[in-house]
Amino acid sequence: MNPVAGHLATRSPLHDILAPRGIAVIGASTDPTKRGYKAMVGLIKDGFRGNIYPVNPGADMILGVRAWPSVADLPGTPELALICTPAPSVPGLIRECGRRGIQGAVILASGFAEMDAAGASLQDEMMAAARAHGVRLIGPNTSGVFNLHHRLNLLALDNVKPGDVGIVSQSGNMLLSLALEAQHNGQVGFSTYVGPGNQTDLGFNDYLRYLGEDRHTRVATLYVEGFRDGRKFLEVAREVAAMKPVVVYKSGSTAQGQRSASSHTGALAGSYAMTVDLLRQSGVSVVQHSDEILPVAEGLGLLQKADGRRVAVIADGGGQATIAADRLAEAGLSLATLSEVTRARLREALLPQASTANPVDVAGSTDAHPSLLATCMEIVAADPGVDSVFLVGMFGGYSTRFAESLLGDEMRGAEAMVDLANATHKPLVIYSLYAPIKPPALRRLHEAGLPVYASIEHAVRVLAALGERGDYLARAHGQAREAAFAPLPARAADIARARAEGRDLLEVEARQLLRDHGVAVPEERLVRDADELAEVASAFGETPLAMKVVSRDILHKSDAGGVRLDLVGEPALRAARAEILAACRDHAPGADIEGVLVTPMARKGVEVIVGVIRDPIFGPVLMFGLGGIFVEILEDVAFRAIPLSRHDARAMVDQVRARRILEGARGAPGVDQAALVELLLSVSRLVEAYPGLEALDLNPVIARDDGYSVVDARVIVERDPHHKETTA
Amino acid sequence: MNPVAGHLATRSPLHDILAPRGIAVIGASTDPTKRGYKAMVGLIKDGFRGNIYPVNPGADMILGVRAWPSVADLPGTPELALICTPAPSVPGLIRECGRRGIQGAVILASGFAEMDAAGASLQDEMMAAARAHGVRLIGPNTSGVFNLHHRLNLLALDNVKPGDVGIVSQSGNMLLSLALEAQHNGQVGFSTYVGPGNQTDLGFNDYLRYLGEDRHTRVATLYVEGFRDGRKFLEVAREVAAMKPVVVYKSGSTAQGQRSASSHTGALAGSYAMTVDLLRQSGVSVVQHSDEILPVAEGLGLLQKADGRRVAVIADGGGQATIAADRLAEAGLSLATLSEVTRARLREALLPQASTANPVDVAGSTDAHPSLLATCMEIVAADPGVDSVFLVGMFGGYSTRFAESLLGDEMRGAEAMVDLANATHKPLVIYSLYAPIKPPALRRLHEAGLPVYASIEHAVRVLAALGERGDYLARAHGQAREAAFAPLPARAADIARARAEGRDLLEVEARQLLRDHGVAVPEERLVRDADELAEVASAFGETPLAMKVVSRDILHKSDAGGVRLDLVGEPALRAARAEILAACRDHAPGADIEGVLVTPMARKGVEVIVGVIRDPIFGPVLMFGLGGIFVEILEDVAFRAIPLSRHDARAMVDQVRARRILEGARGAPGVDQAALVELLLSVSRLVEAYPGLEALDLNPVIARDDGYSVVDARVIVERDPHHKETTA
Repeated sequence: MNPVAGHLATRSPLHDILAPRGIAVIGASTDPTKRGYKAMVGLIKDGFRGNIYPVNPGADMILGVRAWPSVADLPGTPELALICTPAPSVPGLIRECGRRGIQGAVILASGFAEMDAAGASLQDEMMAAARAHGVRLIGPNTSGVFNLHHRLNLLALDNVKPGDVGIVSQSGNMLLSLALEAQHNGQVGFSTYVGPGNQTDLGFNDYLRYLGEDRHTRVATLYVEGFRDGRKFLEVAREVAAMKPVVVYKSGSTAQGQRSASSHTGALAGSYAMTVDLLRQSGVSVVQHSDEILPVAEGLGLLQKADGRRVAVIADGGGQATIAADRLAEAGLSLATLSEVTRARLREALLPQASTANPVDVAGSTDAHPSLLATCMEIVAADPGVDSVFLVGMFGGYSTRFAESLLGDEMRGAEAMVDLANATHKPLVIYSLYAPIKPPALRRLHEAGLPVYASIEHAVRVLAALGERGDYLARAHGQAREAAFAPLPARAADIARARAEGRDLLEVEARQLLRDHGVAVPEERLVRDADELAEVASAFGETPLAMKVVSRDILHKSDAGGVRLDLVGEPALRAARAEILAACRDHAPGADIEGVLVTPMARKGVEVIVGVIRDPIFGPVLMFGLGGIFVEILEDVAFRAIPLSRHDARAMVDQVRARRILEGARGAPGVDQAALVELLLSVSRLVEAYPGLEALDLNPVIARDDGYSVVDARVIVERDPHHKETTA
Repeated sequence: MNPVAGHLATRSPLHDILAPRGIAVIGASTDPTKRGYKAMVGLIKDGFRGNIYPVNPGADMILGVRAWPSVADLPGTPELALICTPAPSVPGLIRECGRRGIQGAVILASGFAEMDAAGASLQDEMMAAARAHGVRLIGPNTSGVFNLHHRLNLLALDNVKPGDVGIVSQSGNMLLSLALEAQHNGQVGFSTYVGPGNQTDLGFNDYLRYLGEDRHTRVATLYVEGFRDGRKFLEVAREVAAMKPVVVYKSGSTAQGQRSASSHTGALAGSYAMTVDLLRQSGVSVVQHSDEILPVAEGLGLLQKADGRRVAVIADGGGQATIAADRLAEAGLSLATLSEVTRARLREALLPQASTANPVDVAGSTDAHPSLLATCMEIVAADPGVDSVFLVGMFGGYSTRFAESLLGDEMRGAEAMVDLANATHKPLVIYSLYAPIKPPALRRLHEAGLPVYASIEHAVRVLAALGERGDYLARAHGQAREAAFAPLPARAADIARARAEGRDLLEVEARQLLRDHGVAVPEERLVRDADELAEVASAFGETPLAMKVVSRDILHKSDAGGVRLDLVGEPALRAARAEILAACRDHAPGADIEGVLVTPMARKGVEVIVGVIRDPIFGPVLMFGLGGIFVEILEDVAFRAIPLSRHDARAMVDQVRARRILEGARGAPGVDQAALVELLLSVSRLVEAYPGLEALDLNPVIARDDGYSVVDARVIVERDPHHKETTA
């Protein structure tokens, strides 16, 4: 009978906890200002079908329900306990719940790790009790939970109706705001809400997995201030996004916002741009304005996806057609080019002054026949060059604006749109300037599951999210992430040796590591003695050479005077070596200098940067950007979590704003982008192969029309915590 | 008695036309689908107090009003005629109106210049009639007009109430959309609306001037697809913006949108980025999303301005405080640093867990005392470091969310906020998540003239507009625009000669022109003969030199092989000259070569570009940006209409996104920004001095920490239309 019984192996424990047959309300109260009162009211008013066990040693009855002095006294075993009592009581209560066999507890109290050290140790005690007894915890410091399809409303929120939007929000006010917007909207309903609070036990990852499995949820919507285990979250998001849309608003897009968030959550915010890239890589629809959360969740929930980004606009006024065209372009969507057949059919349906190019402007044709708008939508939806249909203008208001007698035709138009939505897989998105006053035709559309927006801007965000989601499902999801290289024993030994010595790889070692895994690093010679220079000079001939010091004690070679460029011939090499050695001995007197590295100068091209960092939240992350001002001033960088798929690598190159330079701007030839994609994939596979590799910096890489060369390579090795740092 | 009688000399003719004592409705009709019926209904229903004269040769009475067969038959002389008949009838009707002494006509019909050549000549005929008889025209092809304070509602729009927002919109649907939003909002009302239509006679400039003078209008709001005389519009905007806020939404922010607009208006769109810069220079508040037009107009109308951009946020929940902090930072606003006194007062008012840093988070302190939020607003408003106060959260909903018994305290809070708004000049902006359901406390605020927003994003747009407007009034407006230089006869003669010869200035002439007006152009020598090179070489000594061809027939010197760089000593100069002459003769065999120009190579620095264009809509416009990719790839350019004030020049340098490079990023020293400001002012004054100067391109200018050098200067001279173009 259980709809997800087939998945028991991975089934979330939250299904039982959030759909309990019984609930203990610990700290139930008759004082209307207390949460222990509100929760009782919410359960009773919403008609919770299971057993309610108020627990309060000082009362026999609460709101007409028999109360019990303690958890131990309960006549049955509820799956869930709501704990409304203050923090110090919680560890003991968790033990009591555990002994009684209660599976999960929602802990409202604050005053734990988010407050001070005493709170943190109370939290540890609570977690120890929970682990010992197998009780799963939601919170503490949570705004609460609801599961409206189970009539479990522990927030006692009025006027929320059951529906298919599931919510996890680190802000209780944000839930309230969404609930009020939904109430105003009239059609959006909710499935489950969870406030994760301190995420001491269960966290975002668990809640998202649950929403993914929950059959009542068609779209998972999250307001996030900070992740606890970001890497795990990305994995869960990938799994869930394959099944249903996942919408995330991540706060802290600016330093000012991050300071504000950390002042009240203590959470580590991380780079916003990186977080957005990684979430999108995992199939998440990222929303960047808080007032777009509900519109996008509603639109994705109802319409799911578009197969592409070519939008056909049907408008009954030029001004709003233009606004729509502007917003679509800004959102990366295009106006579909309508076929001649489509335009001929439109011409047949409309008056001669109508414009049948996209945006289609009916130019008065529908003033007395609003249902013609539905006909136009049918016509453009049938065009294979159209991925989604956007109706813009007065629909729903014709009978108000022009003549009441148009109501019948307008309602027929609404029915035709509903029929079209059922017949086509292409999403129909409707903006009406009459949406705020909800005329009958718009109510009909809404009831039938067609969202109607009161803002062109919000409608376009929905179209963009539908296009992105379609793109993700068609191209990104399911693309295999490239497997790690087989590690080479010699290279692993280099890394182990560096780690033992508490240093990074020498440049020669780094270059060898890269070269051994197919990365194009120019030929080099490590010169330990001046006598070798004659042979080196003759080997390279007329090719201009670069010379760099090799020393485990000198990290910043240029600063130490350890780099000389554009050298040709033995005398120049000899002079450069002498200068380098003198400058480095001067700069770092005790430095152990291995020798100098000699390589051909890279031919001219476009400077790019490839880097790997280990992010404390998201783990190993690859970054790509153009060198110089693009990274340093414009912060024009693409991020992806390692391991990458081929699609990810390609998308990184496409994403940077400076891609026009890669394509060959200002008369220069374009660079070999396919080679850059291979480079990104190789770096991803290499990082996966050698766990001791902490970070990597290829800066610059010179990209050209015939490939690329890594000019400078730095490989940072994980430090052995027991090794004493000696590097100057 | 007339409130603007003191300004009769410049008083807009629209005051009489839009507040007529009598109106003729030409084409008045009993057919409910006709505009001639709707207008009658609008006038009668709204209680128009003057005389209504329906004109219709086939009816004696229309809607109970005595009708007249023709304008000539009218028993009185109305100031205004509404013409509802088709286009071909209009020229004759204008003649009739003129003969009868009617001052203005609103022409609804389309089918004029916007349609075809026949329509254009009909439009010419109509304008000739209007000029001959002194009739001013609104339209044709206009959606109509209203003046609600005069009960003149020619659109028969229901449910609009009189208020202080004046609107001019090139889209009738946009007006309708704003009217429906206002109806939903419940507090926003309108003064005058005009649809400019084809702007054959009266246009945006006239309507804006009228709204500026109109005592019922506190904020002028314009939806613009294209300007007719943009330069004049900027002048009018400057005048009006000194008195009241001017809000403009300009469509066509993207190429896709511009194509859409021109397909239905035929208007020239121009560069969006340039238009936005020029509008802001003239004090206009530019709105970039259509759903922000009404919120910003309401906020600016009620709150007028903020004295700075330091915002104090009072929040009752951390999540929305963080969202507010993010949006404020993105909008260029900062969180005010609260003084110790302020924080101590907040600590006294709030519970210990409250955060008194900005954003202030009351952290539950107000759950049982919502009026405490007003106390907090008072406290922060008294802080001299705060320019505006932003309340974020649940206010208005406490009695709904927590306990009905809080209603009294919540209403007291609302009263205290109203009192505070009256006592302080600092704007109070309120976001409430309960705004959509309009609880009593929020209705009270709204009625008292405090706007309440349902979206943090919209509220922040309002705060940004208030800050920008305060900044404009305090710093930009009233700053004298720098006067033109006195033109020098010799330089004027150079320009006249070039014009007569149908060419641009030679580079030597351009350099002299600039140098004569204080622009730093490096020393140069025009070398006509190889024999002069010895003297040149000895004069410049070891300084590396650049050599460029000088020929009126060679525009693109580099392409012609006409440039050699880094030359030192006579042999190098001789060789370079020979190469240049050979290459140029090869490239342009018949070219008249004056000689070569020799100048010192500019020392290294930051490449910037200064240009002047004559825009067909806005006239002479100065542009500034960093060279290379910044202009060509990133389109990071600032524009200002000439003449500039010193503030304008400074603002241009501050505006470019790459300003960090000017400030000295990546270890480089910053450049002398004051010198760049002087350069921009000099170019502005120079362009004003020589009207024959069509365009100018200083590209590149090398900016350094000790000034700048103009490396290449091109001055385009206006072409004599009678001169035959001979340049290859």
